[in-house]
Amino acid sequence: MPSSWGKIFKVSTFGESHGEAVGVVVEGVPAGIPIRLEEIQKDLSRRRPGQSKLTTPRDESDTVQVLSGVFEGKTIGSPIALVVHNQNTISKDYENLRETFRPSHADYTYQAKYGFRAHVGGGRSSVRETIARVAAGAIARMILEDDFGIKTVAWVDTIGKIASDLPESKFPRTREEVDVNEVRCPDIAAAEKMRALILEMKEAGDSVGGIIRCASYNLPPGLGDPVYDKLDGDLAKAILSIPACKGFEVGSGFSGTLLTGSSHNDEFYMEEGTGRVRTKTNHSGGLQGGISNGETLTVRAAFKPTSTIFKKQNTVSIDGKDTVLEAKGRHDPCVLPRAVPIVEAAVNLILVDAYLYQRAMNPLWFQKWAKVPDYYRDLKL
Amino acid sequence: MPSSWGKIFKVSTFGESHGEAVGVVVEGVPAGIPIRLEEIQKDLSRRRPGQSKLTTPRDESDTVQVLSGVFEGKTIGSPIALVVHNQNTISKDYENLRETFRPSHADYTYQAKYGFRAHVGGGRSSVRETIARVAAGAIARMILEDDFGIKTVAWVDTIGKIASDLPESKFPRTREEVDVNEVRCPDIAAAEKMRALILEMKEAGDSVGGIIRCASYNLPPGLGDPVYDKLDGDLAKAILSIPACKGFEVGSGFSGTLLTGSSHNDEFYMEEGTGRVRTKTNHSGGLQGGISNGETLTVRAAFKPTSTIFKKQNTVSIDGKDTVLEAKGRHDPCVLPRAVPIVEAAVNLILVDAYLYQRAMNPLWFQKWAKVPDYYRDLKL
Amino acid sequence: MPSSWGKIFKVSTFGESHGEAVGVVVEGVPAGIPIRLEEIQKDLSRRRPGQSKLTTPRDESDTVQVLSGVFEGKTIGSPIALVVHNQNTISKDYENLRETFRPSHADYTYQAKYGFRAHVGGGRSSVRETIARVAAGAIARMILEDDFGIKTVAWVDTIGKIASDLPESKFPRTREEVDVNEVRCPDIAAAEKMRALILEMKEAGDSVGGIIRCASYNLPPGLGDPVYDKLDGDLAKAILSIPACKGFEVGSGFSGTLLTGSSHNDEFYMEEGTGRVRTKTNHSGGLQGGISNGETLTVRAAFKPTSTIFKKQNTVSIDGKDTVLEAKGRHDPCVLPRAVPIVEAAVNLILVDAYLYQRAMNPLWFQKWAKVPDYYRDLKL
Amino acid sequence: MPSSWGKIFKVSTFGESHGEAVGVVVEGVPAGIPIRLEEIQKDLSRRRPGQSKLTTPRDESDTVQVLSGVFEGKTIGSPIALVVHNQNTISKDYENLRETFRPSHADYTYQAKYGFRAHVGGGRSSVRETIARVAAGAIARMILEDDFGIKTVAWVDTIGKIASDLPESKFPRTREEVDVNEVRCPDIAAAEKMRALILEMKEAGDSVGGIIRCASYNLPPGLGDPVYDKLDGDLAKAILSIPACKGFEVGSGFSGTLLTGSSHNDEFYMEEGTGRVRTKTNHSGGLQGGISNGETLTVRAAFKPTSTIFKKQNTVSIDGKDTVLEAKGRHDPCVLPRAVPIVEAAVNLILVDAYLYQRAMNPLWFQKWAKVPDYYRDLKL
Repeated sequence: MPSSWGKIFKVSTFGESHGEAVGVVVEGVPAGIPIRLEEIQKDLSRRRPGQSKLTTPRDESDTVQVLSGVFEGKTIGSPIALVVHNQNTISKDYENLRETFRPSHADYTYQAKYGFRAHVGGGRSSVRETIARVAAGAIARMILEDDFGIKTVAWVDTIGKIASDLPESKFPRTREEVDVNEVRCPDIAAAEKMRALILEMKEAGDSVGGIIRCASYNLPPGLGDPVYDKLDGDLAKAILSIPACKGFEVGSGFSGTLLTGSSHNDEFYMEEGTGRVRTKTNHSGGLQGGISNGETLTVRAAFKPTSTIFKKQNTVSIDGKDTVLEAKGRHDPCVLPRAVPIVEAAVNLILVDAYLYQRAMNPLWFQKWAKVPDYYRDLKL
Repeated sequence: MPSSWGKIFKVSTFGESHGEAVGVVVEGVPAGIPIRLEEIQKDLSRRRPGQSKLTTPRDESDTVQVLSGVFEGKTIGSPIALVVHNQNTISKDYENLRETFRPSHADYTYQAKYGFRAHVGGGRSSVRETIARVAAGAIARMILEDDFGIKTVAWVDTIGKIASDLPESKFPRTREEVDVNEVRCPDIAAAEKMRALILEMKEAGDSVGGIIRCASYNLPPGLGDPVYDKLDGDLAKAILSIPACKGFEVGSGFSGTLLTGSSHNDEFYMEEGTGRVRTKTNHSGGLQGGISNGETLTVRAAFKPTSTIFKKQNTVSIDGKDTVLEAKGRHDPCVLPRAVPIVEAAVNLILVDAYLYQRAMNPLWFQKWAKVPDYYRDLKL
Repeated sequence: MPSSWGKIFKVSTFGESHGEAVGVVVEGVPAGIPIRLEEIQKDLSRRRPGQSKLTTPRDESDTVQVLSGVFEGKTIGSPIALVVHNQNTISKDYENLRETFRPSHADYTYQAKYGFRAHVGGGRSSVRETIARVAAGAIARMILEDDFGIKTVAWVDTIGKIASDLPESKFPRTREEVDVNEVRCPDIAAAEKMRALILEMKEAGDSVGGIIRCASYNLPPGLGDPVYDKLDGDLAKAILSIPACKGFEVGSGFSGTLLTGSSHNDEFYMEEGTGRVRTKTNHSGGLQGGISNGETLTVRAAFKPTSTIFKKQNTVSIDGKDTVLEAKGRHDPCVLPRAVPIVEAAVNLILVDAYLYQRAMNPLWFQKWAKVPDYYRDLKL
Repeated sequence: MPSSWGKIFKVSTFGESHGEAVGVVVEGVPAGIPIRLEEIQKDLSRRRPGQSKLTTPRDESDTVQVLSGVFEGKTIGSPIALVVHNQNTISKDYENLRETFRPSHADYTYQAKYGFRAHVGGGRSSVRETIARVAAGAIARMILEDDFGIKTVAWVDTIGKIASDLPESKFPRTREEVDVNEVRCPDIAAAEKMRALILEMKEAGDSVGGIIRCASYNLPPGLGDPVYDKLDGDLAKAILSIPACKGFEVGSGFSGTLLTGSSHNDEFYMEEGTGRVRTKTNHSGGLQGGISNGETLTVRAAFKPTSTIFKKQNTVSIDGKDTVLEAKGRHDPCVLPRAVPIVEAAVNLILVDAYLYQRAMNPLWFQKWAKVPDYYRDLKL
């Protein structure tokens, strides 16, 4: 099972829902960077379950431990291993799943692929794997913030048929603006309706999906590689690898197909004062030809309703018999609020990798666009 | 500029629009496979420009040449290099683009990234690069067809606001059903309106976008790798790397976010006669947990309206001055009809790579699901 | 710092000498394989320090822990994380190395590369990193033994100028034959002299190097990929990545350059009874064109004398001043006995990766050469 | 058949001896670099056959053609495809090899691996593949020379038992010093004896091997990555992938195992005037912990005697029968003179990749050590 990512900033994750631990090894982290462990922990805590009535009651502190790569508080260039031990596992809740496949879950496909599976807690297909990415994403985020001031902020855009209504000029620019409510939707009126819908679904033993939007601010132009490693392609892969994600779009995305070229094109102009090339509109979502153009990077990700529900469903058993399943265990009626930091992590991981690759390709670009953080000056070459 | 793809069936492409040639090297192709060159050529011909009034008048025969990897008509296991020489290049049409950036094209971002660019014909960002993938995709297709009878068929689902209306049961199952009209939309009534719209846009010097749908039939369960190399993630990356693509979805995608879990879940049942596990509905689009479940794989890709239009547009020059651009050159008013074989190629490339990886992981799976083609028997180990 | 390896059976290691732990994540392990943890531990114990007077007195139990990828005793196809926590670290012994570079060690080059380093215990350059490979190598070994009966055995061939004298027909075929003495040299007479030399060096605060030979038995023909991923090239890279290794040869190696083609060529013949193609001599060392030919694979690796010695040496400080160093800490006067299992692990890791790649390429080859272990039959596809 | 190389500066080669062409695609080449095509051609001409009586009479001009990646004489950041068409192929000379395996050649192992092979001219196992690396290596060389003045020079150190006698202080520093004779050995007296031996072998229908030494000057400290991507490991893999190479060593290599640590260690001192850290001796061969230390990088590679000889040899047929082979075709009695530029190319490819990776990791290192070539200033970001 390939579980690694990235050309230079490579993450390799491991861990199952009910195994000993989940974790990640990150190689390709430059040396000398102060690692603020409390920030990694903070990102993990935004993702962890049990934070509100909207999420699964599985209560995990998700305390991260650094096993390597950091010395006296700074990176030393060697692989950074981060581990979170699983604590609150209740395997008996899953005994009936040893023989039975949950509809629209990964139970059957794992069995068909491997011929053997860890049926408890969804095993490797569990959303617990995303701990690894969030931890690695926090390191990525620090580099991006320190060198460019790049900020990536995601939020819940829709839940079911309830949509928020925020033009790009009103997009939240900090995570604090997103965390104002449990739903993580900065449109307060919409958030209230979303919250009600999620609780209604929870009550009914049912589930609901929605769309997350993510924006990245302060990207310099020139990030991303055209052709196969386009930033949008890499972002799509990273985001679609999050459990329950079924769709991705950048900029105008699917709705852009309704426009003509003359109305869709983003005309360029020179920004007064800064001398920067800007666009009047941003249907491109900050990317042209797969490369950042300096505008805000905006993407959206569609998440299906959680497949594990508490209603009876028809299904089949491992022995090929029709049967009926009634799920137990602890599950989110809606994954979106917790998926917000996961989407952010995915975006940060892709951006930092594109950045380091670009640094290899074009040192003048680094000189033009990057701030040189203080800690660089501590390096003694 | 990373330009390679795949874990085992690796493609590495090269070539610019107005350079000497475009081509591809494919490594990881098993030995002993008969290469039907005429089929590669046929796939390329479906993609080439100048086929109808709907496309750019640039007329290229796109004749493919095999430089290596094939001996006496069969693969020998070594890298296969396929090359198409550019012929009908008119560089003077692009002289004004040396200094000026076309809105929503990759001109500015290439300049910002590399500091130097081939301004003629869009250089590497041209859709001509896709020749390479279509050629490689044809080899992938042959392997998939021979070992499993997997057929991948794409078609135009919408153009602008005109949508075809085909339920999954009426999806075309052959390319011939798609090629019945120039638009490549098997819904004949819709196709006629789409054709009119494209010609209207062409007349107006404007452009239009739309959505392509792609279906793959006869996939065995077990293809694709969970977590980071999910089949949907890999498909998204591959498809978003096609010029002008801005969105991707699998199965119910964005519209699936409007349903509840109980209506969205695909219940399992045992198929009589075959003993296969099946699902009653296919909101999953053939994938669960990133792995194929044996149902039809269905994805959709959103293509923005072509950015090169023949209307005056505001833009900036390489020297940072506001200016006005009036494009010349030869361009498609709508890329979708020609993108159909490109999407198919992308899907086939991802599927064959997942297949070979799975063959490494689980030889029993090969024994259970694959047909052993005749040419295997010619191998003399 | 890239720290990963392999095309399919990928290992990614982490950990510093005096950090929290060292470990490895292995992805690309097929599902259903029984993991005999005690065998991994046994391999680690052969590598660990403190086993005899010949090695460093640092005493570590090197107890391995499985964090993921194994369920009810068997692999599930997901990444296997193995961790060994460091226990017996004495950082104060290294305080003088914060400012001073040990000659022929990696202190200076790490500083010049990263500008910041963990000076304690050699950090990432310590031989403790090899724990990770030995643990991963044990899994590789199990697969190779189960599917083919491949056995890889390494031993000390020379120490300083003392050479053992074993023709290929007398090569040890089990690890037990090697572990008969502390030196790990199956030529008993030579071993005794080697032991005396090492102890003499230890007494003198000096060190000594030597050559390890490694043989792999029962390889089927067809392993390894010509051109860039030749088995000998991959083995060389893997073995030269072991600390202190400065040379590699396969088969006749450097001494083969003294022969003519007619005396060096290995003539083929058909083996009676088995119908297998064999060679009369084995100057090729079991590889031709980078691919195994079915004969015993034999390689040799040269290890320099340990660079950390207890004599005064001229060196420079981090501030660019000439100075004199007298090393402290705990170090092996000769790394070879402990390097024996590390070389074996390197070979097993390369072989298993070549095997899985070949399985992807040629399923008929699997049918012809591999035994199908019992645990395959437990898979329920 | 994996045929690609490198983390950033990636080369992917293709082509068989008697196919249409051999070539290479290089991705990860920075933009803006002037490509001096005549230098690529010059490197290829040093490698091509038919240059003297010492080599195969196959006469190929090996004219290189650039298919992509270069615009108006400079790189544009996109993949560079270089192709050399085969011209002087005489397939009938190989008809007897369709059914018979040459001893110590790759005929049998290819057959055992793939079950099908191109028997003409050795197919992919032919030394003609190395054209691709030499062409790519020339681009690597230009970057290394322009940014650092790094010069890599290889030469013939021994042929059979005839050894040259050059201490490091007398190593040739230019290729012109090597090309003073056909053998490419700068020790004139030894070269004359080597030449006589090669001709004697040619006359006898036999062959001979030897050792090539390679030195790289002006490396800054900090190139290469410890652990798995050590510079020596990568060099070993690259060099062992050259046909007929059976051994590799860096610095003191195998002979270093005869010394004690106190005599082998390279003591550091501060160089007056430059303020650079230097070593008094260079047993390390310029590498410590897999990273360059600023001293001359020296490696040696052992090449076995050419396996194709014109004497009768016992062998077996594809149908498993003992038989006798008398080779035809055109072959080098000694590959070493022609292998000199191939070794240089391998070294340059590894160095440039390590350099670009380091540039990604540490931009301050670039500022400290690299010259900024004029063409950087032409970039217009």
